[in-house]
Amino acid sequence: MTICAISTPSGIGGIAVVRISGPDAIVTCDRIFRPYKPSHILEVRPTHTLTFGKIIHPETEEVLDEVVVSLFRAPQSYTGEDIVEISCHGSLYIQQELLHLLTHFCGVRMAEGGEFTRRAFANGRIDLSQAEAVADLIASQNVAAHRLAYSQMKGCISRKLDALHDQLLRLSSLLELELDFSEEDVEFADRKELLDLARQIDAEIIRLSDSFRTGQAIRNGIPVAIIGETNVGKSTLLNNLLGDERAIVSDVHGTTRDVIEDTILLDGQLVRFIDTAGIRETCDQVENMGIERTYQRLQRAQIVLWLIDGTLLANGSSTDNCLQEAINVYHRFEPYLNDQQLILVINKIDLLSSDQLDSNLPLFLKELGEIIPQSLNLSYATISAKHNLGLDSLREVLVRSIRLPQQTQGDVILTNQRHYDAMREAHAALQHVIDGLQLHFSGDLIAEDLHAVIDALNSVLGRSITSQDTLNNIFKNFCVGK
Amino acid sequence: MTICAISTPSGIGGIAVVRISGPDAIVTCDRIFRPYKPSHILEVRPTHTLTFGKIIHPETEEVLDEVVVSLFRAPQSYTGEDIVEISCHGSLYIQQELLHLLTHFCGVRMAEGGEFTRRAFANGRIDLSQAEAVADLIASQNVAAHRLAYSQMKGCISRKLDALHDQLLRLSSLLELELDFSEEDVEFADRKELLDLARQIDAEIIRLSDSFRTGQAIRNGIPVAIIGETNVGKSTLLNNLLGDERAIVSDVHGTTRDVIEDTILLDGQLVRFIDTAGIRETCDQVENMGIERTYQRLQRAQIVLWLIDGTLLANGSSTDNCLQEAINVYHRFEPYLNDQQLILVINKIDLLSSDQLDSNLPLFLKELGEIIPQSLNLSYATISAKHNLGLDSLREVLVRSIRLPQQTQGDVILTNQRHYDAMREAHAALQHVIDGLQLHFSGDLIAEDLHAVIDALNSVLGRSITSQDTLNNIFKNFCVGK
Repeated sequence: MTICAISTPSGIGGIAVVRISGPDAIVTCDRIFRPYKPSHILEVRPTHTLTFGKIIHPETEEVLDEVVVSLFRAPQSYTGEDIVEISCHGSLYIQQELLHLLTHFCGVRMAEGGEFTRRAFANGRIDLSQAEAVADLIASQNVAAHRLAYSQMKGCISRKLDALHDQLLRLSSLLELELDFSEEDVEFADRKELLDLARQIDAEIIRLSDSFRTGQAIRNGIPVAIIGETNVGKSTLLNNLLGDERAIVSDVHGTTRDVIEDTILLDGQLVRFIDTAGIRETCDQVENMGIERTYQRLQRAQIVLWLIDGTLLANGSSTDNCLQEAINVYHRFEPYLNDQQLILVINKIDLLSSDQLDSNLPLFLKELGEIIPQSLNLSYATISAKHNLGLDSLREVLVRSIRLPQQTQGDVILTNQRHYDAMREAHAALQHVIDGLQLHFSGDLIAEDLHAVIDALNSVLGRSITSQDTLNNIFKNFCVGK
Repeated sequence: MTICAISTPSGIGGIAVVRISGPDAIVTCDRIFRPYKPSHILEVRPTHTLTFGKIIHPETEEVLDEVVVSLFRAPQSYTGEDIVEISCHGSLYIQQELLHLLTHFCGVRMAEGGEFTRRAFANGRIDLSQAEAVADLIASQNVAAHRLAYSQMKGCISRKLDALHDQLLRLSSLLELELDFSEEDVEFADRKELLDLARQIDAEIIRLSDSFRTGQAIRNGIPVAIIGETNVGKSTLLNNLLGDERAIVSDVHGTTRDVIEDTILLDGQLVRFIDTAGIRETCDQVENMGIERTYQRLQRAQIVLWLIDGTLLANGSSTDNCLQEAINVYHRFEPYLNDQQLILVINKIDLLSSDQLDSNLPLFLKELGEIIPQSLNLSYATISAKHNLGLDSLREVLVRSIRLPQQTQGDVILTNQRHYDAMREAHAALQHVIDGLQLHFSGDLIAEDLHAVIDALNSVLGRSITSQDTLNNIFKNFCVGK
């Protein structure tokens, strides 16, 4: 079946491109395309050429637009099928009308999201991890995310998994060699060697799954939650932090985030602020419907900005009260912290004298430090969100708190949940292999687990049989036209 | 100077196209383009070909994207210059980075709005009226507006003006013939013939200027104002009329409207509802700042929907009051009506029994009809905006009130204010010619006016010397990339 879609961003522009792919792409387009040189009908044009002409209604012959047609003959095309791309004027009317002509008069149907890429995969032009990278490439907004997506599209994950696959096959054949001799009850292969090989593969798989956290942070931004009681200045702080540096956020298909959150680029790192507007209500009314979601978000944060009202530090005598209040707030959200970096942000310092701050803050921090576990790496900043004071130092504290493991140049980093899940699966099955080898299980039992490892890796590349559901799921987030 | 811009709509999509035009377009692109076949550098590629390759940073050699490059060599291109179009993946990062590479490393500068089309005009590929039609084509949202813009782009105005131009030249040469013999004081040419010719040309010019109103209505929608007192249900009615049929409205450059107003397609006609939210305040406080604007808008309307509260018709005894109130309202906006179609919309009929309506409405309409001049063609509809009653009949009344002069197939219709102004100018000068011929002015005096007519026509096509200011003004509303 031949499919079509607008491949350029939706909206009005100088030009728009309608892509048509499939066995009938060329003859179909000839029905509505009149080349300026009559001999230049698409059917006889060579691949990789551009042809000027008009789009006409096949029945009324009314001219819709003047266009340039790009022709890519199979298999030298994105999908591996014949592709015709029509560059038309980018008016909404022309774009819609052109799709109408194709679907009503040419027997072409509208492509689903990602269907061109899905065909590229089905026709063996790219593997599944490369197909997934195409959507990531289109959605990436900064250089780090772009590099990850581009290298995945160019097959860096494929090559890494191919290498692991080769090692697993070697393990498998050593095991089969052992099986051949099993009747004589001789452990032919040196199980020490097998064990070393399995551990070596496992270490690599663990490294890959561990890279996922980094990949997520690079792709979606390092998650930072701002929490604190009402009127402590959360919105003002957030707005000031976002300021003019607000990253371009788009709700286009192909971005994989379920919630659009505000992001900024901080020292070249994408930082994503998590909406925790509900944290107050959550603390006040445990029965609040949104509670679970807010806590999940807090748990997902890598950095927590805990905003408190600095005027509580105004005089020495109230410091105790202030501390007690802070501790109460802390205990409310403490259950949802694991290994986040906690940054205490003391707001409204414009209402304090520097004497008040200098004399009361150190004690306050010291006493708080005795309650908050070391693992949270408590740091602090004093600011006035309202008057834009101290925000630069807060940004510095934030940058220092960002923990992105240094990746060696060329290291493969996972960014995709599906790949991560497959790696966890491979790791679990490989653990069974390792256990089996250590416990001297028979080779055929171990071989079964080994196949599970291989299957998990193959699923990433789409080499094993991939269910239509899985494929639908993967491509549903693609934009139409890619 | 070589220029570049993103030609596809702004945003994220499957692909985006960056267009580069100018004398260095090809060598410049070779700096950042690496074809997959090393021999396929753009400099040696034939025109109208597609080449696969990578975009690389010219210093770090880091790969930005895999692309397809379209090559159009001068003069066989849109601008008449060498054009390279790079189809890249439609991520914001790639689009921006590609422009960055071109502008920072390749000596290319960003194109201004409409600059490609402006070059097409400067290089004689198209005349000015055709250039202007390109922006209209991109902005057009319905079949009628599309057809007008397309035929103008294909030169229908140019051909019409060329024909008039030929007739004017004939007039001019007849006049010169007369001048050659003027010393002998003989009126050589038959002035009757000259006069007939001049009147014939003038009739055509008048027809063209008259078509402007139609052109405006087709391009921007037929302007309909909804007026009435507070709480009479204007917003509810507007929302229900817009309903799901709301036309796609875009704020993209290239649309020429200064205010985005709500439009719907009604019986294939674009209808534009004019915001008159201020009419009430305007009536209450004459000093209101917005008064002038609101009245201007009312004056621009072709149809006025005058909404009144039907519950005033509830019983016979109050009908007189109701009438008096309606007359008061009418007198408030009456000064701003000229030849609009007035539709009285009686709202809230759900609160009336049909008896009440049947017995009181006819008298009310009769008495109102005695006050409102015939020229306003008063018609009426009874509705309940809240309960969506009677809206279909209102739509029918609306459709009947739309007065678009029937144009003969193939008639040229002006849509552009600049063309209209030039036609008015040509008409005024031609009136002087006609007067001069009738009053037996000497030929050289008449010739001067005749040149003014020719200049006015030439200005539409950009054939006379066009000032940079005029050109800047024309192209400033274009989208960048076209």
